[in-house]
Amino acid sequence: MKKVITGTFLDEITHDIPSQNWGPEEWARDFDNMKSVGIDTVILIRAGYGQQATFESGVLKKEMNTLPVYTDLVDLFLGEAERCGMDFFFGTYDSGTYWINGKYQKETDINRAFCDEVIEKYGHRNAFKGWYISHEINTFDEGMMNVYEQLSGHLKGLKDLPIFISPYVKGVKQFGEEAISLDQHVREWSEVFARLEGIVDIVAFQDGQVGLHELEDYLRVNGELAARHGLQSWSNVESFDRDMPIKFPPIAWPKMQYKMESALRSNVDKLITFEFSHFMSPNSMYPSAHTLFRRYLEWLDKQR
Amino acid sequence: MKKVITGTFLDEITHDIPSQNWGPEEWARDFDNMKSVGIDTVILIRAGYGQQATFESGVLKKEMNTLPVYTDLVDLFLGEAERCGMDFFFGTYDSGTYWINGKYQKETDINRAFCDEVIEKYGHRNAFKGWYISHEINTFDEGMMNVYEQLSGHLKGLKDLPIFISPYVKGVKQFGEEAISLDQHVREWSEVFARLEGIVDIVAFQDGQVGLHELEDYLRVNGELAARHGLQSWSNVESFDRDMPIKFPPIAWPKMQYKMESALRSNVDKLITFEFSHFMSPNSMYPSAHTLFRRYLEWLDKQR
Amino acid sequence: MKKVITGTFLDEITHDIPSQNWGPEEWARDFDNMKSVGIDTVILIRAGYGQQATFESGVLKKEMNTLPVYTDLVDLFLGEAERCGMDFFFGTYDSGTYWINGKYQKETDINRAFCDEVIEKYGHRNAFKGWYISHEINTFDEGMMNVYEQLSGHLKGLKDLPIFISPYVKGVKQFGEEAISLDQHVREWSEVFARLEGIVDIVAFQDGQVGLHELEDYLRVNGELAARHGLQSWSNVESFDRDMPIKFPPIAWPKMQYKMESALRSNVDKLITFEFSHFMSPNSMYPSAHTLFRRYLEWLDKQR
Repeated sequence: MKKVITGTFLDEITHDIPSQNWGPEEWARDFDNMKSVGIDTVILIRAGYGQQATFESGVLKKEMNTLPVYTDLVDLFLGEAERCGMDFFFGTYDSGTYWINGKYQKETDINRAFCDEVIEKYGHRNAFKGWYISHEINTFDEGMMNVYEQLSGHLKGLKDLPIFISPYVKGVKQFGEEAISLDQHVREWSEVFARLEGIVDIVAFQDGQVGLHELEDYLRVNGELAARHGLQSWSNVESFDRDMPIKFPPIAWPKMQYKMESALRSNVDKLITFEFSHFMSPNSMYPSAHTLFRRYLEWLDKQR
Repeated sequence: MKKVITGTFLDEITHDIPSQNWGPEEWARDFDNMKSVGIDTVILIRAGYGQQATFESGVLKKEMNTLPVYTDLVDLFLGEAERCGMDFFFGTYDSGTYWINGKYQKETDINRAFCDEVIEKYGHRNAFKGWYISHEINTFDEGMMNVYEQLSGHLKGLKDLPIFISPYVKGVKQFGEEAISLDQHVREWSEVFARLEGIVDIVAFQDGQVGLHELEDYLRVNGELAARHGLQSWSNVESFDRDMPIKFPPIAWPKMQYKMESALRSNVDKLITFEFSHFMSPNSMYPSAHTLFRRYLEWLDKQR
Repeated sequence: MKKVITGTFLDEITHDIPSQNWGPEEWARDFDNMKSVGIDTVILIRAGYGQQATFESGVLKKEMNTLPVYTDLVDLFLGEAERCGMDFFFGTYDSGTYWINGKYQKETDINRAFCDEVIEKYGHRNAFKGWYISHEINTFDEGMMNVYEQLSGHLKGLKDLPIFISPYVKGVKQFGEEAISLDQHVREWSEVFARLEGIVDIVAFQDGQVGLHELEDYLRVNGELAARHGLQSWSNVESFDRDMPIKFPPIAWPKMQYKMESALRSNVDKLITFEFSHFMSPNSMYPSAHTLFRRYLEWLDKQR
């Protein structure tokens, strides 16, 4: 692998991060920047959320009464990925309600019908190279195992591509006293991966929920667990800062450097980030992302 | 009507939105931008709040021990409105305490004396074209009916101009489980408008407290209720985002487009926004307002 | 004294304010700007916090398992201060845990060993002109008196320089109903200063926890108390806004002007700010800091 970040999420539909209000021109400029630093993989964070969708979907309109879509973001992102020679992973729809309230089958059923429509519209596109199941878990959850199993089978039937997930750690920065121990994390994820073997191909744990001093241990056990069950390991190096009252600014560069170098030492297969355009792009609406980008370029120079 | 946003609040004194620290030069540049997109009406959000005032008022100094004022914002805004051929609505003083703690008469009395002073200083100005009673309500409130009645009578006696209010909806985005139903909203506002008929001339409900899927229903009933009681209906199309942890960034453009088009379909008399300078200006301190402005220009082009 | 702000904190390690991700080039540019407006004193807010440090310290690595440091900020800031002819105050290490949980001696011991290392590395530097004990208190605290006493003795033994502290007021903006009265504040700080006489040389109360209408009273009693016990009085004119939901934007200019002029009327010996680079610099990541800087320049012009 190249020892740098080669993948990023595309955070549209945004969920808890403000929109940058970019149109096709601004996105094209940002894809140019991504390409210039070696990004070869882009992952649509989700194709829809609640009543918001990334394209006019008959299924989501009917099932979820989604709002009108004025710009087809899936087409836009596929076009940019094709122009820049990148792989595009398609992120599934998140109802924001059914799977959270135990209605797992409903979440699965909507996504099955929705992904049929997706393949009909975009399945032929050159950049369409993977599926991202956008529903995130942090511990074993029987209902979600069923979602992953059914969706994975259906998606691979539609187009036989790698299935990717990016779970989070029930760690201290997000859960405080509810956080679980490293041992408990290992027990939970042994169980998860035992079920997802052959179902999910790539796992990229988010790296921001644990203390920086704990990160190397988590990277190690996550890599071992994934390897034991035949999953490829990527690290999702979060480029936003979880330690600030403002939710969320670009991360302080030393933390980013530390997390990348920790991941590289742990021998993950690929570094990706959530996400380039808001938090480390020279085009970001956050000026401290511009300087994060400068620091990243200086670091890149030293890696070569 | 022109099918675009033709009015904006001026958010000084700022209350929960950070100051942009603009002086006369920055304000002049922004009025130029407002004019360039067809804004013909500016509304001062409030002439004072607690101990802060927009000009050195003897009444507020005496009654509220207001802090020194270094720039006369009322004069500044009137001058800019005159230069740009806009109507200026004067927003009343908000104590931030009396009317909230049931001391309605005190709030009214301060504002009566204060507005005497206002008319003496600024009543002759060409752009002074309306009164905005800045105290916002979301349901029927007997005390506030008295404030509106007394203030309206007094203000029209001072200068016979349209009286404008911009109430909010006790909707789910601001009140969660305390939110009221559409039916309850109709009952409350039937009662309010029955009392304010002939007292208030223009009403512009804020459009951001309800879910986007509910908005058309609210726009419809608000228009019907206002018409039944002889009030003109504007829509206050909020250009900030209520769905984010950061309170508040510029809104995601698709929501803005959806809200404007919903309002236009409902046949309101005018679109205004809270507010241009922070949230959709190319001069805003928020870069995503610059891109919101670009999206808005593209949309304007299609409206013509 | 020059009647302007002549000192600023340097907020690295940042604690609750997002990093600007500046490297040496960006810092040099900002020191140039500080110098251009008359800043002659810079104060490192803290030399480390928890596991983060400003340089690779053997003591902190051993005691606190600090993370790797990629840029020596103490060296960088000393170099810039020397280039610009400024005095540099060194801020002590804050464990973020020991002194907060009653383990005062541990906090003191780490800092004693740490400051030995500091003097060995940086004690010869020309700009090294003062000690800043970074642990902040708002009322009398016996444990902290011991920290100050022991640290002051040790630091002066290492290098006999002024000892500076910047306490806060247990005021309404930070503590709401827990806030103490002006009288109680006087009682607490009489007791503190009685203990710190001859131990601490300079005190700069933070000016943002109290209502603006209370500020002059606090400035007056703080000055009187300090004078009675032989301490020099500076005012820490906070340039960030404590009144907004966003924690924290640059302050609204009129509040800044009011606070500076109040401090000048109270005859403090020096105005400093927390802090220039985030909140009032033309290089800040916050655009409203650029306009705050413009307003400050206009005000400076009038002071001369």
